[in-house]
Amino acid sequence: MAGAIYPKMAVIGCGLIGSSVIHAARAKGVVAEVSVADADAGHRARIEALKLAETVTGDAAEAVRDADLVVLATPVRAMGPVMAAAAAALKAGATVTDVGSVKGYVAEALAAHAPDGVFVIPGHPVAGTEQSGPDAGFSALFENRWTILTPQRRSDAPYQAALERLTDFWMALGARVELMDERHHDLVLAVTSHLPHLIAYNIVGTAADLEEVTEGEVMKYSAGGFRDFTRIAASDPVMWRDIFLTNRDAVLEILGRFTEDLQALSRAIRWSEGEKLEALFTRTRAIRLGIVAAGQESAEPNFGRDRQHKG
Amino acid sequence: MAGAIYPKMAVIGCGLIGSSVIHAARAKGVVAEVSVADADAGHRARIEALKLAETVTGDAAEAVRDADLVVLATPVRAMGPVMAAAAAALKAGATVTDVGSVKGYVAEALAAHAPDGVFVIPGHPVAGTEQSGPDAGFSALFENRWTILTPQRRSDAPYQAALERLTDFWMALGARVELMDERHHDLVLAVTSHLPHLIAYNIVGTAADLEEVTEGEVMKYSAGGFRDFTRIAASDPVMWRDIFLTNRDAVLEILGRFTEDLQALSRAIRWSEGEKLEALFTRTRAIRLGIVAAGQESAEPNFGRDRQHKG
Repeated sequence: MAGAIYPKMAVIGCGLIGSSVIHAARAKGVVAEVSVADADAGHRARIEALKLAETVTGDAAEAVRDADLVVLATPVRAMGPVMAAAAAALKAGATVTDVGSVKGYVAEALAAHAPDGVFVIPGHPVAGTEQSGPDAGFSALFENRWTILTPQRRSDAPYQAALERLTDFWMALGARVELMDERHHDLVLAVTSHLPHLIAYNIVGTAADLEEVTEGEVMKYSAGGFRDFTRIAASDPVMWRDIFLTNRDAVLEILGRFTEDLQALSRAIRWSEGEKLEALFTRTRAIRLGIVAAGQESAEPNFGRDRQHKG
Repeated sequence: MAGAIYPKMAVIGCGLIGSSVIHAARAKGVVAEVSVADADAGHRARIEALKLAETVTGDAAEAVRDADLVVLATPVRAMGPVMAAAAAALKAGATVTDVGSVKGYVAEALAAHAPDGVFVIPGHPVAGTEQSGPDAGFSALFENRWTILTPQRRSDAPYQAALERLTDFWMALGARVELMDERHHDLVLAVTSHLPHLIAYNIVGTAADLEEVTEGEVMKYSAGGFRDFTRIAASDPVMWRDIFLTNRDAVLEILGRFTEDLQALSRAIRWSEGEKLEALFTRTRAIRLGIVAAGQESAEPNFGRDRQHKG
């Protein structure tokens, strides 16, 4: 163990990602002490039962006191108010980061409330499961996944040193780290995460509303493809509400492209243009292979759901 | 082993489903002899290497000779021509079924070409993976999945006996069996399988066409949700082309509903209607839980992708 990168880490909001950061940082020995603030009393009880932190509180200002690293892991729209509430208690020289799926909005909210003398480095580990809450976390969540950092436009040496330290922290947790402009981040994630979630929520809603097909039928025959969509449509509702409200422009832009393409596909079906359909369906296979080759997906059929039976 | 339900089974088209039927039927001892016809010479070589069948041929008429059960497992639009080519060689009293994902079209195509004295019972095992070809099959594919049979409107005793025998066959393979009108089948599957595939193909195509976001970025950050869509967008292109061309009306009807709902969702984002978003996102969670409860999905986070790491 090389010793703690940050002697004390404060995690504000302890759901799937917050608790996974704690598990991973403890497993790798890169923090010595952990304090947690969570607004939900039920969560706090679980955090204590799981012995995730030395300090568990409902008060963000109390949690950040003396912390070298502060990780905001609340829904995106709560981050500005949390920073405002905790600002006066932050230690000079502390690094403040976050794990939100939208970076332009968060970068502005944190910059508006952070005091001078702390280093604000917004971040986003692109990893997750459909589960929520402090019990959902596990230490391997970030392994071989990408964490994107969107640093402020500062070239001073102390900020660069803070950025290097935070990069080391994420790499110690098993992640690969990429630096990116926050606007570009928000467009990339609109494609790879926000639109997929929107589509998944939508198709599950459409299926539930049909009169001619019962919900029981939808469930029974979901192995034909539908069930894959329901996984991400089970993600945390408040977290996702905030993402769509704060990355509105990029989401609507990408959604517009998706809808145009879907109209063209619909037209090809209506006019029985088989070659067009086959050409698209052949192209999309290659993308899947690329994702498997990039180490971001299991190559096993059905994600290995049938692994235990195969043969 | 209770003995063969069908002494000789012929499988026409030996991809994922055809080869899985053979593996499962052999494992359960419900057939004694298997013949296979496949139009692809490369497939035939693999079928021989895998020792899947006693007879391997390119000629459907040769394969069906003396067969008690004929299982058509080609793309949907090939089934009519195959039946026309093989009709004269069918044994009197044989049962002809299929595994296609569209039933109205297939029921008509088979009825048009089948000779008197054989029992046509269209069918559809709702199961699969994204992999294709004779190497992709495995014996457990149908376990705890539903097979839908869409029998003809015949009440004569021999037909009913043939239907019972085919039901026994699928149950022996581990499947649960449901009888359904073919038009209703096509609507239910438009929701639970065809629309999900269409949406998945479309979103993967949209992502690949963006100028501002590279394909490499789409792959690297796909763990944010996108990768779940790419699995089903890697399914066999010809098979899926045929499904959309032959279930056009139901697919366009369901796609219309989906698009309406998506416009409403888009509007809610544009006007920052957070309560609407949260209400939808909360409802969709319940459907996921229903699918897990119905035994059609793994309850493990990420489909168990992280199973080996968890803890």
